[in-house]
Amino acid sequence: MSNTTPKRCLWRAITVFDGLRTLTEPMAVITEGTRIVSLTPMRDWDASQGEGCMDMGQGGVMTPGLVDCHTHLVFGGERADEFEARLEGAGYEEIARRGGGILSTVRATREASEEELFARARPRLEALIDDGVTTVEIKSGYGLTVDDELKMLRVARRLGETLPVRVVTTLLGAHALPPEYQDNSDDYITLVCEEMIPAAAAEGLADAVDVFCEKIAFSVAQCERVFEAAKAHGLAIKAHAEQLSNLGGSAMAARHGALSADHIEYLDEAGVNAMREAGSVAVILPGAFYTLRETQQPPVASLREAGVPMAVATDANPGSSPLFMPTLMLNMACTLFRLTPQEALAGMTAHGATALGLNGLGRIREGADADLCIWDIDTPAALAYAVQPGRLRQRLFGGELAHAS
Amino acid sequence: MSNTTPKRCLWRAITVFDGLRTLTEPMAVITEGTRIVSLTPMRDWDASQGEGCMDMGQGGVMTPGLVDCHTHLVFGGERADEFEARLEGAGYEEIARRGGGILSTVRATREASEEELFARARPRLEALIDDGVTTVEIKSGYGLTVDDELKMLRVARRLGETLPVRVVTTLLGAHALPPEYQDNSDDYITLVCEEMIPAAAAEGLADAVDVFCEKIAFSVAQCERVFEAAKAHGLAIKAHAEQLSNLGGSAMAARHGALSADHIEYLDEAGVNAMREAGSVAVILPGAFYTLRETQQPPVASLREAGVPMAVATDANPGSSPLFMPTLMLNMACTLFRLTPQEALAGMTAHGATALGLNGLGRIREGADADLCIWDIDTPAALAYAVQPGRLRQRLFGGELAHAS
Ligand SMILES: [Zn+2]
Ligand SMILES: [Zn+2]
Repeated sequence: MSNTTPKRCLWRAITVFDGLRTLTEPMAVITEGTRIVSLTPMRDWDASQGEGCMDMGQGGVMTPGLVDCHTHLVFGGERADEFEARLEGAGYEEIARRGGGILSTVRATREASEEELFARARPRLEALIDDGVTTVEIKSGYGLTVDDELKMLRVARRLGETLPVRVVTTLLGAHALPPEYQDNSDDYITLVCEEMIPAAAAEGLADAVDVFCEKIAFSVAQCERVFEAAKAHGLAIKAHAEQLSNLGGSAMAARHGALSADHIEYLDEAGVNAMREAGSVAVILPGAFYTLRETQQPPVASLREAGVPMAVATDANPGSSPLFMPTLMLNMACTLFRLTPQEALAGMTAHGATALGLNGLGRIREGADADLCIWDIDTPAALAYAVQPGRLRQRLFGGELAHAS
Repeated sequence: MSNTTPKRCLWRAITVFDGLRTLTEPMAVITEGTRIVSLTPMRDWDASQGEGCMDMGQGGVMTPGLVDCHTHLVFGGERADEFEARLEGAGYEEIARRGGGILSTVRATREASEEELFARARPRLEALIDDGVTTVEIKSGYGLTVDDELKMLRVARRLGETLPVRVVTTLLGAHALPPEYQDNSDDYITLVCEEMIPAAAAEGLADAVDVFCEKIAFSVAQCERVFEAAKAHGLAIKAHAEQLSNLGGSAMAARHGALSADHIEYLDEAGVNAMREAGSVAVILPGAFYTLRETQQPPVASLREAGVPMAVATDANPGSSPLFMPTLMLNMACTLFRLTPQEALAGMTAHGATALGLNGLGRIREGADADLCIWDIDTPAALAYAVQPGRLRQRLFGGELAHAS
């Protein structure tokens, strides 16, 4: 990681995607310290305006630093063996007997120390950073005890203190039912509400609280209890909802003022309307759809029509989306879900930031944070069109040129 | 690109995928000059065996350098605008009116100088190299005149002379019908047979000849004429076949002794048997299947049953597979086509080499070429399981540590 002293930096004749759309003319952009201070069409540009600026080059494409608003980057173990066993013909029962599935990740996460979790998560986060990420959300959800959930959140916070990236943390205690509560899911939700959330809030470890609202996880009523506890502690809320079936979790979350509902392949019109009214963001996660070989697509046309902002994220996790590459998600959002490249890019910049409650981040305009990516491509659409590592020319985080490797 | 003087190099306690399977025990591996000279299970290892060796580290996974046996890396222009227009709702007619489709690439390739084609292809090839490739096939096929096809092949040769990678070239004159021959496809095939192939052979620019056998391209009879001309000039042959329909092109190619039939989503049992008898390799190209959102999968179970070797490649090209990332193809081969991770890895090492007529390459064993990748992963399956740039710790080409960046 290299740092340069903040100063005035100048890019010329660069095509700018500003977080919502591609500007029609090549621009000159100047940053000073941690801020973008000027944005000028080249035809209005006078070389004297650049005096005293460090020349950062010309041409290429500038986007806001990427915002990956939904990840599970911290976890113990790995599931490559399970991936292999399944493809070699092992059935679900055999996988379960061999200790596979999400509970294998829970076991490994509980057994791992904070040091171990940090050391394993770091290269994953570096992969995201090297692909342009400047803001990333990281969820807990593989500890499922008060101590182990807090341990995961501490690791997430420490990643943000160590690497040149903004980490937003989310407590996902209601991710899966731990084996200790096998026939007492309501009791587990009580633990989440009465112990986990208060503890995470007291230590300032969680920026938001998430739930997995699904038949194989928690009911709408249980998730609502979690949201009420979160709001009582002043924490933002969001939901994994309508991924595998339509339970109405997104609409319930929206009624509680959720930042976002995520996955939403099975979202119906009532859900779209509830999200529109609440201003919740629809977080599109093509990686899980691809990995699980799903066929039900999220209602992109309805969301677009209703004006519900769509974010795009990796859902990076060891089971359903072992895909640690945000720009691949831009391609998948377009190829699999028919987002336009502009929508996909907005989904990983301005709308990704909104999904984290960070309105104003993920934009390029005067006064905005200088979290920026400069890419060796001809047009912003090329970032979604081709999957090609190595096109990130420069990445600025808080105005400083910072690479993880 | 950094080069070190060839010497004895030692890796210890490394998990080896040898090109066909994962060895059951951690190994010590020694290279000397351009060759692998010893491969010893750690339990039989004596430190004295490593005297005089440069310590290259321990742990991780070693695979043969990756072999990408099917690419179209050299081309003019780009198709990001077309990708965007299509997703923004432009119909096929409008795209065609705006000059899109393969003929837009033909136009841009004809207009580009050798220098320009080289400069545009270089970062694409560097992306492949940084993802572990040590051998890559590059096809012509966007020139469609004698001069422009030879120009493309010269660029491919020059890429191999400039970067630390082995480039195998293929003349794909019979890729698409150029506009000049719109109603005279037989005359165009005559040009391919009587002018292009002899010229490419005379200049030593092509290692093989390829065809696109499909309703939207050339008939089985036309492709057979091309193969006869290629064989008369001592060139190997291969085919794009059974991608969109079942014409029997793969079986015809096999009867002519083709190295491979590629795509083969619609291959039937007769085709599988013909390939088995001829020893042709089935080249699996999940990137085009993914990008085109196809649903017909190649007959993987039949190929496996028949013992037809399966290769996996990127098909990297500006239209149907703008995916410049070989390890992503390992994941797609497993996720979309249900290859096992071992099959996918063999498909991009030993079987990829066989598809290029380079038997013996793509293997780790005593005496083999020291084209090697060392990865920061726990098991070979992890390379197919997770999509995560940045895990390539070392890459050796011809025994020399060589990175493109
Ligand atoms: Zn998730
Ligand atoms: Zn091809």
